[in-house]
Amino acid sequence: MAKVAILGAGSWGTALAIVLCDNGHEVHLWGHRKEHIEAINRTKKNEKYLPNVPLPDNLTGFYSLKDAVENVETIVLAVPTKAIREVLSQLREAIDLPVLIVHVSKGIEPGSLKRISEIIEEEMPPHLLKDVVVLSGPSHAEEVSLRQPTTVTSASKNIQAAKFVQDLFINRYFRVYTNPDIIGVEIGGALKNIIALAAGISDGLGYGDNAKAALITRGLAEISRLGCKMGANPLTFSGLAGIGDLIVTCTSVHSRNWRAGHLLGKGKKLDEVLESMGMVVEGVRTTKAAKQLSEKYSVKMPIANVLYEVLFHEKDPKEAVEALMARVKTHEMEDLVNILENRNEEL
Amino acid sequence: MAKVAILGAGSWGTALAIVLCDNGHEVHLWGHRKEHIEAINRTKKNEKYLPNVPLPDNLTGFYSLKDAVENVETIVLAVPTKAIREVLSQLREAIDLPVLIVHVSKGIEPGSLKRISEIIEEEMPPHLLKDVVVLSGPSHAEEVSLRQPTTVTSASKNIQAAKFVQDLFINRYFRVYTNPDIIGVEIGGALKNIIALAAGISDGLGYGDNAKAALITRGLAEISRLGCKMGANPLTFSGLAGIGDLIVTCTSVHSRNWRAGHLLGKGKKLDEVLESMGMVVEGVRTTKAAKQLSEKYSVKMPIANVLYEVLFHEKDPKEAVEALMARVKTHEMEDLVNILENRNEEL
Repeated sequence: MAKVAILGAGSWGTALAIVLCDNGHEVHLWGHRKEHIEAINRTKKNEKYLPNVPLPDNLTGFYSLKDAVENVETIVLAVPTKAIREVLSQLREAIDLPVLIVHVSKGIEPGSLKRISEIIEEEMPPHLLKDVVVLSGPSHAEEVSLRQPTTVTSASKNIQAAKFVQDLFINRYFRVYTNPDIIGVEIGGALKNIIALAAGISDGLGYGDNAKAALITRGLAEISRLGCKMGANPLTFSGLAGIGDLIVTCTSVHSRNWRAGHLLGKGKKLDEVLESMGMVVEGVRTTKAAKQLSEKYSVKMPIANVLYEVLFHEKDPKEAVEALMARVKTHEMEDLVNILENRNEEL
Repeated sequence: MAKVAILGAGSWGTALAIVLCDNGHEVHLWGHRKEHIEAINRTKKNEKYLPNVPLPDNLTGFYSLKDAVENVETIVLAVPTKAIREVLSQLREAIDLPVLIVHVSKGIEPGSLKRISEIIEEEMPPHLLKDVVVLSGPSHAEEVSLRQPTTVTSASKNIQAAKFVQDLFINRYFRVYTNPDIIGVEIGGALKNIIALAAGISDGLGYGDNAKAALITRGLAEISRLGCKMGANPLTFSGLAGIGDLIVTCTSVHSRNWRAGHLLGKGKKLDEVLESMGMVVEGVRTTKAAKQLSEKYSVKMPIANVLYEVLFHEKDPKEAVEALMARVKTHEMEDLVNILENRNEEL
């Protein structure tokens, strides 16, 4: 049995803590707010993020990061992407021996355009970092905490590290598949939030399932085009961290990105939406990064670009969706063939 | 403006008739039940299949097939797959000049394992058949009849014929893309109904969105593996007739295959389900064909095979879904790489 520290006591960090506890590991769940952690230890519940799910006995909350990671070799990083650099700077001060970092956040940093694993490699000195693994897939925290069947991908440049993480998490209800393509898994996880925002807008405007399926299909093509330019394997986007995660995020009531889009479609302003959510909506920040990436790599990303106009330049959502639908008649394969052509340029 | 006959006055045939009428064409809607057609002409509504949608003036119902196709060069075939050979045998007796046949049915014939376009080529003498085009994609009839935005693929071995059909149907709310891969478009359309049945079972059993997304993702892989063995282009399965149609069929309340699966998951027997639906559930018949195809082409299709056991050998649905989820831990790419490897064997 291993000792694992999970940094980030939101819904996903807590759900993963439950999986690891079910597998018999000793889990340290770290959050920066003292009252929140004290309540978790006292009530054995995370009332704010996963109300009504009893937490296992082998889970302990910590508000001191140093205490949480003491003698721990495996760290799960489950904080919002915006907080990652800050938390990593605390982590590197707190440890003396190298750790394996499993990250479960989904986003791209605007400005630097770095994926999370690149940020980790940048922030952690090599002598303190064994490997970086990303765990991603169609996995709403609420369902995992209720032990509902779930499948995810464990990806790393070092396949042995991905397998180690697979062994750590896998059980009867939480199935873990390995994949060596960390770039594809990270891009898929980050960019699906943009499409979920767009799907939410379409639903909020009162369009139907046909329109949403079209958006998801074209969204996947757009993610694949960019991902392949960035060095991903196109097959990853047909897997759990690609289409799997995209489907669940675009069609589930649990998805906060979809919910934010839905409110935008209903006519709310972005500020109101973010305020009313009370949780981080990663897709908003990722849309900014995607727009920059589409320019950097010269990849056409009509959905990301139109969404950027809606979010940051008050473009009317109805006009935006209509613009996407009303593209000139075309040959379906043109878009799709580009995926492979882009890939070939890279090889 | 063209004259078009639509054979089949169900919900999809009627919705497509509305699209063609909106584009100014003269539409003959044929159904074999005299009372049904007379009611359509009298009430200007199709009460049984699309209640409450007024039908346009340029739509006329026919119960004589010979009258419906007189002086018509474009025939839309919108009957259940089970009825196709019978309707084609009537059609070839009724015409003297060659016609273009656009089929919009989704299925594979058990036994012969033929796709619909192959059945059409078999039943129609060459001198009466100009071309065969398939129109397919994420398109619930109810939404199309309400002019909700919808995208579909027009596929044919003869791309000029696919473009002709694109021009016939395309308008502001109904976007048509062309694709030369008729095999892939037909396989995607047929096999998604199997996955929709499985997704409905999972939902009926009370499993969540994570489990359903896993089923859809693995379902797409299984469809792609088979399709590529049969000569399809793998990219088609990433498009509207692949993942697009799969999503809408697995996640929408309009989908009759999903609804049938949902009832099975709730514990109903197949006979009761089919009786209570009152509409054709294509996925049941296609499951039989898929099992045969998986044997013929030596392609692993775990979802189709387990569903076959549920439908025809009374396997317990809960055990079936658990068996699918509890596969040994594995490498995600193994499944996906097979898609391209299978393809390469064919090339």
